[in-house]
Amino acid sequence: MKIRELGLTIGKLPTGEKNCITDVEGVRVGHITLDYPLDEQENEYACTGVTAILPHGGNLFQEKVTATSYVINGFGKTTGLVQVNELGVLESPIMLTNTFGVPAVTQGTLEYMLAENPEIGDTTGTINVVVGECNDSYLNSIRLFPVQPQHALEAIRIASTDQAEEGAVGAGKGMVCFGHKGGIGSSSRIVEEYTVGCLVLSNFGRKEELRGFQYWNGGGGEVGGISETSDGSIIMVLATDAPLSDRQLLRVAKRCGIGLGRTGSHFSHGSGDIVIAFSTAHKIAHFAEGVITESRTQIREDHPLMNELFAAASEATEEAILNSLSQAATTKGRAGHVVEHFDLGKRS
Amino acid sequence: MKIRELGLTIGKLPTGEKNCITDVEGVRVGHITLDYPLDEQENEYACTGVTAILPHGGNLFQEKVTATSYVINGFGKTTGLVQVNELGVLESPIMLTNTFGVPAVTQGTLEYMLAENPEIGDTTGTINVVVGECNDSYLNSIRLFPVQPQHALEAIRIASTDQAEEGAVGAGKGMVCFGHKGGIGSSSRIVEEYTVGCLVLSNFGRKEELRGFQYWNGGGGEVGGISETSDGSIIMVLATDAPLSDRQLLRVAKRCGIGLGRTGSHFSHGSGDIVIAFSTAHKIAHFAEGVITESRTQIREDHPLMNELFAAASEATEEAILNSLSQAATTKGRAGHVVEHFDLGKRS
Amino acid sequence: MKIRELGLTIGKLPTGEKNCITDVEGVRVGHITLDYPLDEQENEYACTGVTAILPHGGNLFQEKVTATSYVINGFGKTTGLVQVNELGVLESPIMLTNTFGVPAVTQGTLEYMLAENPEIGDTTGTINVVVGECNDSYLNSIRLFPVQPQHALEAIRIASTDQAEEGAVGAGKGMVCFGHKGGIGSSSRIVEEYTVGCLVLSNFGRKEELRGFQYWNGGGGEVGGISETSDGSIIMVLATDAPLSDRQLLRVAKRCGIGLGRTGSHFSHGSGDIVIAFSTAHKIAHFAEGVITESRTQIREDHPLMNELFAAASEATEEAILNSLSQAATTKGRAGHVVEHFDLGKRS
Amino acid sequence: MKIRELGLTIGKLPTGEKNCITDVEGVRVGHITLDYPLDEQENEYACTGVTAILPHGGNLFQEKVTATSYVINGFGKTTGLVQVNELGVLESPIMLTNTFGVPAVTQGTLEYMLAENPEIGDTTGTINVVVGECNDSYLNSIRLFPVQPQHALEAIRIASTDQAEEGAVGAGKGMVCFGHKGGIGSSSRIVEEYTVGCLVLSNFGRKEELRGFQYWNGGGGEVGGISETSDGSIIMVLATDAPLSDRQLLRVAKRCGIGLGRTGSHFSHGSGDIVIAFSTAHKIAHFAEGVITESRTQIREDHPLMNELFAAASEATEEAILNSLSQAATTKGRAGHVVEHFDLGKRS
Repeated sequence: MKIRELGLTIGKLPTGEKNCITDVEGVRVGHITLDYPLDEQENEYACTGVTAILPHGGNLFQEKVTATSYVINGFGKTTGLVQVNELGVLESPIMLTNTFGVPAVTQGTLEYMLAENPEIGDTTGTINVVVGECNDSYLNSIRLFPVQPQHALEAIRIASTDQAEEGAVGAGKGMVCFGHKGGIGSSSRIVEEYTVGCLVLSNFGRKEELRGFQYWNGGGGEVGGISETSDGSIIMVLATDAPLSDRQLLRVAKRCGIGLGRTGSHFSHGSGDIVIAFSTAHKIAHFAEGVITESRTQIREDHPLMNELFAAASEATEEAILNSLSQAATTKGRAGHVVEHFDLGKRS
Repeated sequence: MKIRELGLTIGKLPTGEKNCITDVEGVRVGHITLDYPLDEQENEYACTGVTAILPHGGNLFQEKVTATSYVINGFGKTTGLVQVNELGVLESPIMLTNTFGVPAVTQGTLEYMLAENPEIGDTTGTINVVVGECNDSYLNSIRLFPVQPQHALEAIRIASTDQAEEGAVGAGKGMVCFGHKGGIGSSSRIVEEYTVGCLVLSNFGRKEELRGFQYWNGGGGEVGGISETSDGSIIMVLATDAPLSDRQLLRVAKRCGIGLGRTGSHFSHGSGDIVIAFSTAHKIAHFAEGVITESRTQIREDHPLMNELFAAASEATEEAILNSLSQAATTKGRAGHVVEHFDLGKRS
Repeated sequence: MKIRELGLTIGKLPTGEKNCITDVEGVRVGHITLDYPLDEQENEYACTGVTAILPHGGNLFQEKVTATSYVINGFGKTTGLVQVNELGVLESPIMLTNTFGVPAVTQGTLEYMLAENPEIGDTTGTINVVVGECNDSYLNSIRLFPVQPQHALEAIRIASTDQAEEGAVGAGKGMVCFGHKGGIGSSSRIVEEYTVGCLVLSNFGRKEELRGFQYWNGGGGEVGGISETSDGSIIMVLATDAPLSDRQLLRVAKRCGIGLGRTGSHFSHGSGDIVIAFSTAHKIAHFAEGVITESRTQIREDHPLMNELFAAASEATEEAILNSLSQAATTKGRAGHVVEHFDLGKRS
Repeated sequence: MKIRELGLTIGKLPTGEKNCITDVEGVRVGHITLDYPLDEQENEYACTGVTAILPHGGNLFQEKVTATSYVINGFGKTTGLVQVNELGVLESPIMLTNTFGVPAVTQGTLEYMLAENPEIGDTTGTINVVVGECNDSYLNSIRLFPVQPQHALEAIRIASTDQAEEGAVGAGKGMVCFGHKGGIGSSSRIVEEYTVGCLVLSNFGRKEELRGFQYWNGGGGEVGGISETSDGSIIMVLATDAPLSDRQLLRVAKRCGIGLGRTGSHFSHGSGDIVIAFSTAHKIAHFAEGVITESRTQIREDHPLMNELFAAASEATEEAILNSLSQAATTKGRAGHVVEHFDLGKRS
């Protein structure tokens, strides 16, 4: 269940219809989940996956979107950010997986994009692929590289505009958040005619850090959960259809850190806390020979809407993280490790 | 009263003895408060001031300290950050005042430093002065420049290691926070043998944004306060005696944003939300002819202490902001404007 | 003489008509030069000044321009960059002066802008003033603060679209470059229908570092010049009428460092090497109540024009620096110090 | 031949014994070169490779080195920089290859590091692998992925402290620089008791941009070379044994851009111009349980040595680029493409 079904509301802004990143028109999400033993004793386990987020359903290389990224804490191996930040555009799906799955997922995504675009690396330049990651090695046999390139291709192919599945699914299969099962969570907000959506891959936090838990539960009871996982990470993917320049989008993306901090995180030393954001308001053509100037629409920066977009980013991130907990089922992985669902209780 | 006297506790770490930035050994704070009408009708009013924070009691130019700054949102006119970030050192007091008081306070601080150091601008290089600011124009006749250079000199001269006065004092005299009277607030945390202290100049937030207020007060009652002020700003000064490199100190400084976000702020568009941080662990000599290498001690970055320092920065910032409210008395300024004390209630 | 009159050409792009930043339509430059003894023995000397660069002749607060800044080496006290970089706009003249003249010039510029805009600090927000500086203490009695606020007002008032005076003038009066007299220099380039102009305040470099000098002069002769000045600084102001987003403008501004490096600089430790850039292509209204979105034109980033703009920034900067030498007359200042004109020779 | 053998000298500082990055004690370089047709018609060609740079001969994960990176222009797909910049350390070899070889090389390097360190991804955290790239698609069938993971392992295994082979070798096999054959180049400088070495992978520049060529060759003759390649890229790897903090190392690394600019580059729009730098002065242990603080030695920042290190970085980069030209033989690749050796002439 999403936390709203548990009676827990974050912030003041209304959610979109699906309360999901796919409320931003055109955005697609696809999950491939791996969940099987790798040896007979089940000591080694594939408990991981791949998640693809597509800004739109067209050719992503030929129709790029405005994008940016923001590194809150850089203990992470996300790839592709250098070019996103230099040019302010995204030209590939955003892929999520486990830390050591990054090369395979980059490779698979490259193969997908090359197949779609015969000009790349031949008559036109190369392509920049963005892959975010968290370390799921408590549950997943990360050293055995269960994620393969074709998993990335499949995740892209099945991506849809439906409400995204959450919890222990896709790249979230093996993730641990606040000592309990985390993974994929999503939420959205409506600001006037615009939508802001966030999808997180949550894998951070010690169990005693979840803010407000004791309060929600009447101050009672043990938190439970494990304490063996290291500092972890979180990838936050922020989507909007509001027309924003890359600089404006960066300003909005930075506010995801507010939502993360409000869940209880202190952006731990060993955590890769990274925001990747895009706006679908403009499609930027790859091929535009002879065109010298182009026109862009952007929000008047001092309009109150800007502050509402800031609040929307914070609220959607916080709620997406909590949804990644409330939606995640107890999961068994390698070495007999089990990570339990976090019972957030139910507000009346 | 500090919020702890109201029964409100932030976080888990213990505070220092004074629950103030002056718990960091050697750190001094001095306030000069201006509070008088500028015309007979009292339409124009000096409702402002200057606050000086000194890293230690010695010659700040000759014995520099490790420092950094972090711009959370850059709608602000703070000066001196370029050089702090290039070199990782602070060689002057950190001065706080109103936005249009920056030139006068820079001038006064320069004069102080030149008087102390006859070599500056003669036989040695120049000096970098750091001045932070917020816009107090709701209460203060900022266009009339009531702050003068000598106010900066006086604030430096009277700075002491005592528990700093809070609320509507010094640079905080005319500030407005969450629609109520804000200004200076401070708090500290103890992490093993180290101390982390924060002093804020708070001037941000709409009244309905203060997080948790309704809850603290049993959900009842009107918030009150004004709604005329624009987005505002906050300067956060973070001090520690923990031995940190400038890069490590920046990592700690970034966590002040967590505390700020937890009070309810979304880092508004028009807000200059800026952290200036220093560590007193090393005194770095200005004059060291012939010395080629020097030795520095720093925290092992993966030691759990690092995460505790992160939490300390967040907790001390959040509590300092709330203290800036709870300590600030109702204040009258220009054009008959009055900003009221925020009654946070009292927990039993 | 400009170096072109000496037969020395930099790069391949054509210059504008005046070979000056004022080739960018609307841009104005004004200098106030101070040159007089401060005591009877002439030990103390005012050998300094103020230079104002105005993006256009209208109300700079009400009609802002796109802007950015780039810190190549941050040993400097330039003020106002935090907000320029957050918002991507400039709302004041760019002022240049000596290091300790920054408060006075900020104050004077503030007073000018407040007089022009009665709403600032009253019914609307504050204003961000940008002041760059270099240390002229070899020739100028910097500790005595000869620059006063009214000098800034005067420099703004007399600013004109004429070819700017160069060399030992305005803020350049007391500057030293490559051991010889430096100061103000300017140059421009034409790229298709657009103009790129650069104005520098040069105050850096040891005499033996000037690249190409030996070659130009047939390998012969002593360089001459002084060797007492410390690392120095350079402020580069880049103007263009090309329609660029702030991110694109930053990319162009970064290329000023190429031109600086080509003169022989290694961006010395003690040098404040800073670029402040603006584009006049859009006037951004301060007051626009109710406007939610606005439209901007920008260069297609992969159009070859972009690379030409990069080259233009590099070439104009390099030539502006050399002009600051070739145009600067031998100058006498405090303590009997004399800095000589750099005879760059004459190519046949 | 290296350019010094052609009578061309860059800068004033002396080179190390090998005039190579391997003059920095302990640094190792290994190349694997792929050079064979991929079909019978030889339309498709493997004309590419992998180059490994190892900071020392020990276990790179267990004994990390101080590191940083600097993105001059970010049109590139280099991976691993986020964590390097957050923590200031390098824990893997620096690998170079073609753009689409990044996933395979990351995978191979990961496999190498996991084999050496059974704790990674099991009882300790993950590992950050750094891979730089340029686009060699004019000569190499980049879409066919000729580089495989084992090539990375082999390049690491054969790395040695010998003078590195230069030109059309390793990752440099298919690169094009100034319209001619480029690739791997290296150079070094001695500054007092310290060594600075640079190794570049050069793949940028139009033929007419090479600065000084006409002059060197008496103004005569055609430049020759191709003009079909796009903007290209350059990876600069900077090594030193000077004890520098990560911030200081970043300052030195930024000066590589001066050397790049002096060759004639304007940091083209489509170029990934990236510096990756490390200092071998400290070995930072991965496992250090219970250790709270550690000591570091660093250069006094205002000592003249710092400026010499800046010059060394610029000079070594410029000379490494020119060596990458002078050492590179004419090379044939896919689609019958041939890129010729750049005859820089010979100074008497």
